[in-house]
Amino acid sequence: MIRVPFAEVLARLQQVLSRLGFEEPRAQLAARLFAETSRDGVYSHGLHRFPRFVEQVRRKVVDPAARPERTASFGAVERWDGHSGPGNLNAYACMERAIALSRAHGLGCVALANTNHWMRGGSYGWQAVEAGAIGICWTNTMANLPAWGGSDPRVGNNPLVIAVPHAAGPVVLDMAMSQFSFGALESYRLRGETLPVDGGFDREGKLTRDPAAIEASGRALPIGYWKGSGLSLMLDMMGALLSGGQATHQIPVDIITESRLTQVFLAFDLATIDRAGTREAVVAGILGSLRGLRYPSARITQLRAENLEKGIPVQPQVWEKILEM
Amino acid sequence: MIRVPFAEVLARLQQVLSRLGFEEPRAQLAARLFAETSRDGVYSHGLHRFPRFVEQVRRKVVDPAARPERTASFGAVERWDGHSGPGNLNAYACMERAIALSRAHGLGCVALANTNHWMRGGSYGWQAVEAGAIGICWTNTMANLPAWGGSDPRVGNNPLVIAVPHAAGPVVLDMAMSQFSFGALESYRLRGETLPVDGGFDREGKLTRDPAAIEASGRALPIGYWKGSGLSLMLDMMGALLSGGQATHQIPVDIITESRLTQVFLAFDLATIDRAGTREAVVAGILGSLRGLRYPSARITQLRAENLEKGIPVQPQVWEKILEM
Repeated sequence: MIRVPFAEVLARLQQVLSRLGFEEPRAQLAARLFAETSRDGVYSHGLHRFPRFVEQVRRKVVDPAARPERTASFGAVERWDGHSGPGNLNAYACMERAIALSRAHGLGCVALANTNHWMRGGSYGWQAVEAGAIGICWTNTMANLPAWGGSDPRVGNNPLVIAVPHAAGPVVLDMAMSQFSFGALESYRLRGETLPVDGGFDREGKLTRDPAAIEASGRALPIGYWKGSGLSLMLDMMGALLSGGQATHQIPVDIITESRLTQVFLAFDLATIDRAGTREAVVAGILGSLRGLRYPSARITQLRAENLEKGIPVQPQVWEKILEM
Repeated sequence: MIRVPFAEVLARLQQVLSRLGFEEPRAQLAARLFAETSRDGVYSHGLHRFPRFVEQVRRKVVDPAARPERTASFGAVERWDGHSGPGNLNAYACMERAIALSRAHGLGCVALANTNHWMRGGSYGWQAVEAGAIGICWTNTMANLPAWGGSDPRVGNNPLVIAVPHAAGPVVLDMAMSQFSFGALESYRLRGETLPVDGGFDREGKLTRDPAAIEASGRALPIGYWKGSGLSLMLDMMGALLSGGQATHQIPVDIITESRLTQVFLAFDLATIDRAGTREAVVAGILGSLRGLRYPSARITQLRAENLEKGIPVQPQVWEKILEM
C-alpha cells in the first residue's frame, strides 16, 4: 500500500464525482465519506470500493442526481424512497433525519426503500454519535450467505451498526452477519493465512478455516451458525416491513447491479433521555469493566491520527485507477 | 418427563403465587407466562425455572407486590423503574406500554431499570406480535460470558428478542449472545452428547464440543466470537444509558441474587406503518424464499398444539416440588 495525503484524496474523489454529475455539496460529502472510511482503517469499503461505485454510476445503477424523498410519516417513524440515488448520500440524509426526529420524539426511525450500497455502515453510526445520539442502522443485501441448514445463498449478510457516544472515544459496532466477508476471505488468502476460526464450509460440506475453500464453495458461515442466520432474516424482514421496500430475495445477485436495497436508521437523543448527565460515567464504567480487552472501535482514534499524519493507505493500482478517472 | 394438563399447571402455579403474596390478577398472569413457556417447548425457562423463581421471592430478591413505575417520559421513549418486582410481570407491563406508545408515535420504547430475570424473553415478542406490532426487546444479565480475548466472565449473555407478526405463524427470534446456554450445555451432557459445533473453551483454552469441559472452565463462546462479544457489550451499554439502570458489571454474580437488571422494549405499530396492507405478503415472500429451511419459531404452532393436547412436559421431580409448595 502507498500513502496519499488526506486532502489530496478528498480533492481527487470530489473531482471525479463532480465530473460524474454530482452537484458540488453532494460530491464533497460523498468524497468525504469514502476518504474517512479509509482514514478509519476500513480499507475494503473506502478508496478500494470507489472504482466499483463509479462503475455503478456509469452503468446507471446509481443515479447521482437522485435525492431521497419522504413518502410517509407516522410520528417518530418515517418512510423514505431513495430513488436509486448514491447509497452513502441517501444513508447520510436518512440518519440525519432520524437524529432530527429523535430530538422531537426521544427517538426517531427512518425506513428507506430503493437505495444502493451504503459502503461503510459505520459512517452513519459515527454520524449519530457525533450528534450526541445513540445510532442503530442496518441494511439488507443481495443473497450472499446460505441460511443455516442450506448450501446456496438465501439470506444477506445484512450489516448491523450500533453506535454509542463517548467523549473519550465513541463505541461503534459495525458487523455483518457473516463470520468473514468475502473481502476478508480474499485478504487472508492473498496473505497465505488460514482463518483464526472456522469461516464456512468447503465443497464437501465440512467446516473449514481455509479461505480459498470457502470462496470456492460460496458457503460462508453466519455468526453463531443458526443464530446469525435467524438474525439476518429478522433484519431483512423488519426492513421490508417498515420501508415497504425490497427484501433480500428480490435483489439482483450481482455486485454491480445489486440495487434497490432497504435500510433502517434509528436514533436515540441521549441529551434529552439522560438529563442527569451520567452517560459518560456509565460508558466509562462498562468499558473499564473489560479491563483492557478489546471492544468495537477501541483502536480507531490512534489509527485515524496515524493515517491523517502519514497519509491514507491505498493499493497503488487502485490509486492509479482513481487518478486516471 | 411426565405430562400435566395445561389447565392443571396453570391452576397450581397460580395457587402457589397467590400464597406467596401475588395479588390475584398478577398471580394469574405470572402463572400463564410460566405455563405458556413450557407449552411452547422452552422447558428450561418455564416450569423448570419456577422453583428458582419461588426461591427468589422467598429470599426477597423478587418483591411480589412491587409494580413498575414510570420515572421519566420523552415523547416516544419512557424510563420505568421495576422496583425489584417479578421480572416477567415487569417485562409484560413494559412491552404493553411500548405497544401503547407505538400506537401514538409509530414506535415506542420503554427502558426499564431495577427489574428481575424476565424468564423467557420470547414471551414479550409474542405479546407484541399478538398486538400486531413488531417487537424488539433485550435484557442484560450478570457477567456469565468471557468477552472475546478474555478467560473470565465479563459480559452478559444478554438475550435479544425480535418478533414479526404473521397470520400463518409469527416469526419470533429469541437468542442469547452465548452459542449455548449453561442449561443447554447441561442437557447435552446429561444425554451423553457432544455439541453440534464448538461451544466454548476447555481449561487449556482449546475450542471444544465437549459440554462438560465448558461447564468446568466456565468459558462459553459468544456467537460469532468477537462479534457476539461486541453485540453483547452494545446491548448492555444501550440498556444502561436509556434506562439509567445497572450495567452487567454492577449485577451480583449468583443465579439467586442476580437482580436489578436492565431491559429495553421497542414496538413498531405495523397497522399504522403498513397502511397499504402488504405485510402478510412481505413476510410470506421472505419465508417462502427459504424454501423449507428452518427459521425462528417455525415449528412452534405444531409443538404448542401437541403440548396442549397431550399435556405440558415437565420433569417429574420438578412437578413434585411444585405440588409440595
